[in-house]
Amino acid sequence: MAWTTNEIAKHKDASSCWVIIKDEVYDVTEFLLKHPGGPGIILKYAGHDATSAYVPIHSPDAIHKNLSPSQCLGLLADTKGGEVDVQMGQTQDEMRVEREMKRRPPLNQILNLTDIEDVAKKVLPHPVLAFYSAGTDDEVSLRENSGAFDRFFFHPRVMRPVSICDPSTKILGYHSSLPIFVSGAAQAILGELNITRACGKANIIQMVCTYASIPRAQIAAAALPSQPLFFQLYKVIDTAASAKVVQEAEQLGYKAIVLTVDAVVVGNRERDVKSLWVLEQQEGKTQYYFEGDPEATTNLFGSSAVNRRHAFDSDLSWRETIPWLRSITKLPIILKGIQCVEDARLAVEAGVEGILVSNHGEVLYRIRQQQPDIFDKLEGGIRRGTDVIKAVCLGAKAVGLGRPFLYALSAYGEAGVTKMLDVLHREITISMRLLGAASIRDLTPEMVERVDWEPVRQRNTKL
Amino acid sequence: MAWTTNEIAKHKDASSCWVIIKDEVYDVTEFLLKHPGGPGIILKYAGHDATSAYVPIHSPDAIHKNLSPSQCLGLLADTKGGEVDVQMGQTQDEMRVEREMKRRPPLNQILNLTDIEDVAKKVLPHPVLAFYSAGTDDEVSLRENSGAFDRFFFHPRVMRPVSICDPSTKILGYHSSLPIFVSGAAQAILGELNITRACGKANIIQMVCTYASIPRAQIAAAALPSQPLFFQLYKVIDTAASAKVVQEAEQLGYKAIVLTVDAVVVGNRERDVKSLWVLEQQEGKTQYYFEGDPEATTNLFGSSAVNRRHAFDSDLSWRETIPWLRSITKLPIILKGIQCVEDARLAVEAGVEGILVSNHGEVLYRIRQQQPDIFDKLEGGIRRGTDVIKAVCLGAKAVGLGRPFLYALSAYGEAGVTKMLDVLHREITISMRLLGAASIRDLTPEMVERVDWEPVRQRNTKL
Amino acid sequence: MAWTTNEIAKHKDASSCWVIIKDEVYDVTEFLLKHPGGPGIILKYAGHDATSAYVPIHSPDAIHKNLSPSQCLGLLADTKGGEVDVQMGQTQDEMRVEREMKRRPPLNQILNLTDIEDVAKKVLPHPVLAFYSAGTDDEVSLRENSGAFDRFFFHPRVMRPVSICDPSTKILGYHSSLPIFVSGAAQAILGELNITRACGKANIIQMVCTYASIPRAQIAAAALPSQPLFFQLYKVIDTAASAKVVQEAEQLGYKAIVLTVDAVVVGNRERDVKSLWVLEQQEGKTQYYFEGDPEATTNLFGSSAVNRRHAFDSDLSWRETIPWLRSITKLPIILKGIQCVEDARLAVEAGVEGILVSNHGEVLYRIRQQQPDIFDKLEGGIRRGTDVIKAVCLGAKAVGLGRPFLYALSAYGEAGVTKMLDVLHREITISMRLLGAASIRDLTPEMVERVDWEPVRQRNTKL
Amino acid sequence: MAWTTNEIAKHKDASSCWVIIKDEVYDVTEFLLKHPGGPGIILKYAGHDATSAYVPIHSPDAIHKNLSPSQCLGLLADTKGGEVDVQMGQTQDEMRVEREMKRRPPLNQILNLTDIEDVAKKVLPHPVLAFYSAGTDDEVSLRENSGAFDRFFFHPRVMRPVSICDPSTKILGYHSSLPIFVSGAAQAILGELNITRACGKANIIQMVCTYASIPRAQIAAAALPSQPLFFQLYKVIDTAASAKVVQEAEQLGYKAIVLTVDAVVVGNRERDVKSLWVLEQQEGKTQYYFEGDPEATTNLFGSSAVNRRHAFDSDLSWRETIPWLRSITKLPIILKGIQCVEDARLAVEAGVEGILVSNHGEVLYRIRQQQPDIFDKLEGGIRRGTDVIKAVCLGAKAVGLGRPFLYALSAYGEAGVTKMLDVLHREITISMRLLGAASIRDLTPEMVERVDWEPVRQRNTKL
Repeated sequence: MAWTTNEIAKHKDASSCWVIIKDEVYDVTEFLLKHPGGPGIILKYAGHDATSAYVPIHSPDAIHKNLSPSQCLGLLADTKGGEVDVQMGQTQDEMRVEREMKRRPPLNQILNLTDIEDVAKKVLPHPVLAFYSAGTDDEVSLRENSGAFDRFFFHPRVMRPVSICDPSTKILGYHSSLPIFVSGAAQAILGELNITRACGKANIIQMVCTYASIPRAQIAAAALPSQPLFFQLYKVIDTAASAKVVQEAEQLGYKAIVLTVDAVVVGNRERDVKSLWVLEQQEGKTQYYFEGDPEATTNLFGSSAVNRRHAFDSDLSWRETIPWLRSITKLPIILKGIQCVEDARLAVEAGVEGILVSNHGEVLYRIRQQQPDIFDKLEGGIRRGTDVIKAVCLGAKAVGLGRPFLYALSAYGEAGVTKMLDVLHREITISMRLLGAASIRDLTPEMVERVDWEPVRQRNTKL
Repeated sequence: MAWTTNEIAKHKDASSCWVIIKDEVYDVTEFLLKHPGGPGIILKYAGHDATSAYVPIHSPDAIHKNLSPSQCLGLLADTKGGEVDVQMGQTQDEMRVEREMKRRPPLNQILNLTDIEDVAKKVLPHPVLAFYSAGTDDEVSLRENSGAFDRFFFHPRVMRPVSICDPSTKILGYHSSLPIFVSGAAQAILGELNITRACGKANIIQMVCTYASIPRAQIAAAALPSQPLFFQLYKVIDTAASAKVVQEAEQLGYKAIVLTVDAVVVGNRERDVKSLWVLEQQEGKTQYYFEGDPEATTNLFGSSAVNRRHAFDSDLSWRETIPWLRSITKLPIILKGIQCVEDARLAVEAGVEGILVSNHGEVLYRIRQQQPDIFDKLEGGIRRGTDVIKAVCLGAKAVGLGRPFLYALSAYGEAGVTKMLDVLHREITISMRLLGAASIRDLTPEMVERVDWEPVRQRNTKL
Repeated sequence: MAWTTNEIAKHKDASSCWVIIKDEVYDVTEFLLKHPGGPGIILKYAGHDATSAYVPIHSPDAIHKNLSPSQCLGLLADTKGGEVDVQMGQTQDEMRVEREMKRRPPLNQILNLTDIEDVAKKVLPHPVLAFYSAGTDDEVSLRENSGAFDRFFFHPRVMRPVSICDPSTKILGYHSSLPIFVSGAAQAILGELNITRACGKANIIQMVCTYASIPRAQIAAAALPSQPLFFQLYKVIDTAASAKVVQEAEQLGYKAIVLTVDAVVVGNRERDVKSLWVLEQQEGKTQYYFEGDPEATTNLFGSSAVNRRHAFDSDLSWRETIPWLRSITKLPIILKGIQCVEDARLAVEAGVEGILVSNHGEVLYRIRQQQPDIFDKLEGGIRRGTDVIKAVCLGAKAVGLGRPFLYALSAYGEAGVTKMLDVLHREITISMRLLGAASIRDLTPEMVERVDWEPVRQRNTKL
Repeated sequence: MAWTTNEIAKHKDASSCWVIIKDEVYDVTEFLLKHPGGPGIILKYAGHDATSAYVPIHSPDAIHKNLSPSQCLGLLADTKGGEVDVQMGQTQDEMRVEREMKRRPPLNQILNLTDIEDVAKKVLPHPVLAFYSAGTDDEVSLRENSGAFDRFFFHPRVMRPVSICDPSTKILGYHSSLPIFVSGAAQAILGELNITRACGKANIIQMVCTYASIPRAQIAAAALPSQPLFFQLYKVIDTAASAKVVQEAEQLGYKAIVLTVDAVVVGNRERDVKSLWVLEQQEGKTQYYFEGDPEATTNLFGSSAVNRRHAFDSDLSWRETIPWLRSITKLPIILKGIQCVEDARLAVEAGVEGILVSNHGEVLYRIRQQQPDIFDKLEGGIRRGTDVIKAVCLGAKAVGLGRPFLYALSAYGEAGVTKMLDVLHREITISMRLLGAASIRDLTPEMVERVDWEPVRQRNTKL
């Protein structure tokens, strides 16, 4: 069936909300509250063409995966042909992005990760930037961790041969050219496969999220034969569904299951929601607001009965969850989101192969002080971080970097990711040499010290 | 008797000061120094119509309760009829308030307590805002407590079932849907009953101040049959008068007496006084200043001999005050304003049922460290605070919120108060889940830790 | 003899420098390096009339006391009569001062010491303000002490009778209505006697400096019969001269000798010197600079051989200086400028009656911690300070206030000083009541605690 | 052979890069990556006259020392005669420098080191300033050390004779009029000999860098017969070459070898590189960027095979390097760049005569706390610093000053250096007197204390 723009325009609010995407018409009324980014942004395009807003931040099949067949209403009657007239719907923000993309400095002018971030922040659409900078998948830790490593100072050693300096390491037995890995992100901007390709060439392990915008099979296919990928699981209430996901990942060749244990509720994400409003007001249009169920923002999948089963499982437990996971997969298990020493100890007792602690220098430091044997029994990492060298000194095998990869990707595509890895290689190697460390083994706890006073903060590229 | 505006206009300074309120004429010469807000604001209207300044911040019967019959001089001769011409006396500030009320964002756009505060600060008249933000009833603690909880950090636990999460608790045996209560305020803007109504629906306990702008009987009448109210007593020198107030509260059905022990003198309230001057200068009128007795600002009821008896009792003591209070009421006694561990210990020895410590994370933390048994012997709370969860972890039963309720009320009336309680319910529940706590019992001292370094400060909605 | 302006104008630099003051002509060539404010400001008027710069900050007899008879050359030949044409020489700064004096708020609008300081900073001539704010007599301590008391927090007690609250104390046996005294200043602006008069009425002890701008006999004469004055001695190399000064003070009725022990060199006073340059450049005139002997700024009395004897004695010692002082006076001895616990202990051993420690909460706190018996053996005070109550809690008998008195005097004369003492009385009494202290004896070390974290700084009136 | 400007202009990029300097033509293609300041600045002048950029920051023979004879192509055919037309090539920055030089305040207006620095920062060409302020030879320590001494507070003593105050000391047995020395700099602006001359007159020891812009023989020749100079060695991979350099220094009369142990890699120097770009953009010209080998910036001598031998030796070791140095010279050995107590201890065991620790109050403080005997066994200094007195109290013999000398030299030539030493003499003497110290021996560890809280930072001249 085909619909005219006049007919579509009648379905323009939360009681009945239709949108056009690439000349197809969809009824998204029920989907409104399930939308990860909140209903506001969809309502903005209610009754109109949403292609320009949809395309940059969704995978091509996203809408069909989330809507039932009956919600795909058919074609636009008065389409202007095969080509989408994105221009027509182009907002001021999209024009800004286009302008900024042309102004990007050439890649050879990029000296460090901050340069990349600065470019990315200019070329990203406002909603995507809000999403990224709000904490890619959990805002709470972001709030607590800023500056967490600033109080750790180095004790560099001198008179040690460092002309040959090797920053490579092994993560769960897999070779990694640097003590870092790619931390999973729920929604990478189109082109996520470029991260996979760049990591393959650079020997860096990528952790792929359950909710990656690209199908996990497609990511696995883009990897080199020998390239290890880890799979980050968000367990949902429907245990059978999650089991199926894990087994699919194992069959696709993923090498480890990273169970997310700190996302039982999604934080408030106020910044994300607010950025939409700001955007609206700048463009002087009617405003739509997020109304109703106060629980709605707390779960990516809304609260309607039918979707409850797909909601994050808030009832993970040591007694049930780990045995269940062992029973359905032979892959090593890593727990992501450990936030205190007590839980690190429980992880050892539960027999998992690794943990990823929060980007809180504190947590790692305390494990080192109070339970140094933990690192003999499992591999520890930092979920996401910038102070790679300090974390490795304290005992971490590797540090996950999330946003930097998204920024590099957004700003320059695969070449940007490769550039970023070059920068990291150079910076890590220089830092190791300045510390008198010729290999990762030489980075020891004695080389960092926590001071009891507040250092002067500086904005610079730290490792 | 009726007076012409010409006659009234002659009584225009501190030697003889008359004002018109709602077409009635009052001699407020003697009352000048008794006025809680200081004489300055009254002198501003000396010899003129003060209706526009009086109405928004006083209860209808306030003036008759404070003046003797002989000070109520009679009617205005040249009144313009039944309707007060407020417009005529409308100041620039009143026009600003009117404008801002129209500009308020709709309630569904409010995401947190800061949003409410921002609206309230725009729509409140200058003198009221000065009064509220100067520390609703004691400025000293305000000055010392800012950021007091910032040094306490959370240790969230993972792998604990939290899909069912119940933030309710009991306060002196009464059910409370959240670990908070409404802290008393000396002068809520007209409409205070709306707080009572919203609390009744939401199962929140309200503490009603001796000097509430609404008669305590009227508040009791507005409560639901099962809704508990606590009564906050400011004891005055005239012990018989205070006894009468306590017994009246008991008869009205109030469930506890909260004795204020830290208000023996009222602070300097400079900000309050100064805001009037700023206002004056903005409007380019003659200035009147607060002159004379340096003691006058230190007591709500001035220093004239006749009023001494109504002044706050500066001679409270463990030996006499508690036994006296026990002798006149059967209600449980709570001491409000304990500021150190030693006094918390003395409160236990005095046998009171509860204490409210100052909003100083420190005081609560120290009781927990030095005298943890205190909380076995009485119920502890925080007099006023924002970091609810941290306080509950440290042992507080509940936390009083004062200003946030006044702001919500001022900005949106009863609907604002209800919205605020919704926001608090959502935020407290999310925080509990993120900490791995399914009930108030699961919030333990081990979950918070005091760090010895200064965290980065952020303006965000803390619980 | 009389000189024409033409003749005088030839003596316009450091090789021969004449100035006119009130129609008299002086040769100040030799005096240049002895000038407390440095030679720069004098050279600015070399060969011209300096009356307008001289009058506001010098006592009438200052010039005759500092010059030999032969340096007073005679009268100005072409004087315009009895009246000095100050107008003619009026600089832009003087016009600014005149304007600001007219704009001063009325005294009844002053609420605290900060208000007074704000007024003073507007009405003071630039060079005087630079002198005052550079640290009235020693800049080094100023640099180190700012915010020193911010880390001390109060533990207020409740349920203590404080309706009667007496802030009076005894200093060396003399009654003082408040635990403060007036700290000596080297150069108070004309009108210093007003401080003496206000202190007499308010029962506050004044410490008079060796280099007060008013003769010490005149200050003694302005005091009430029963009013105690202390004399602050700067010992010079010429011991006989200093002995004469001490004995003169004793005969004039001064009650104690306060020996300055921390002014062996005068700091750099760069701010003072620089302010002159700034002034010059604003007015677009020729600039004169301070050239030559790098030692010259380090001693008020220059380095020429003839003046060496009048220079500060840099060779004070426990072994010689105290016995010498005992031998020439029967008055009690106070040492001003003790900066560490070790020296406080040596002061006890030397048998002095009192010490004034630097305005470093730290020093007082450490004496309290390490050598609490020191306060049993002598009286301790703080040389200059604002946090009166905290200092008294830690053991100080009294706290010297210097600059606040100069500001109050400059802004409003004697009435300003009296107002300031009223403000202090009110603030100290309120603070005591809020702490639960009915008398100075009730202010104990347990009431203040030093925290190990950095508090938020606020600009407010602290006691 | 002679070349026309047309011919030269063809060699205008990295594939073939010629420049004209003082009417001579050079092929600098191969030299591009060896250039200490990076290739960018040279490429800016590719195919053109570079005289104006070259002259101010290079010694006259620099180019001939760095190029092979075949790279010196010959004369400029169309030269305009003996005089270089610097004007023609004068950039906006050069015009700015010329203007600022004329505006310099006269030397007698300089009161402290900050004044000198302010002048220097105005009169220095942009690239030179970027080089200086980026950390003259190692940026990493600069980043970590700022404010390092701020937490050390003084305990001044009183009643100690200080009229005679002697700040002189001995460094490795050589008399030094102050406890400071001149720290070596890789590239001083033309006129470096002026530092040598001023130090000779003032009895200050100068440390001359391997890469000084003036030949070390010429510096030795400019010294007074009795004036001690130390030689700072950067050991290169070609050990024989370094041995030759050391022996040459010994023969020239240098009195000690200061081996640099913390420059195994040169930091990123991003600020330096970026300043060129900024400059370019200001002048609206084509931009050239630094492209290629990510290792290139990490070594002053590039990465081409032929130059590897001249690169810094990254394989220094206790076991080999010290014995080698002992075997080739009889001079005392100082290690420059010790960064932790453990390495200070190893230095004692290695038997060196002295160490220079990083400008980290921390390192010196810890040696004092943990290994106070270290300073009995060797002489310790601080590599570079401003808090001279605090460092000496903690045990340092002397403190190296680097940048201040470069600034003084740039701003006022030899007179500036002398002025700076006068200022330092005055400030150090005043500080000593204020502390109650009559000689360097009186500066003891008890006089400084490390506090655990963060002091208020101020920009002032610290000793």
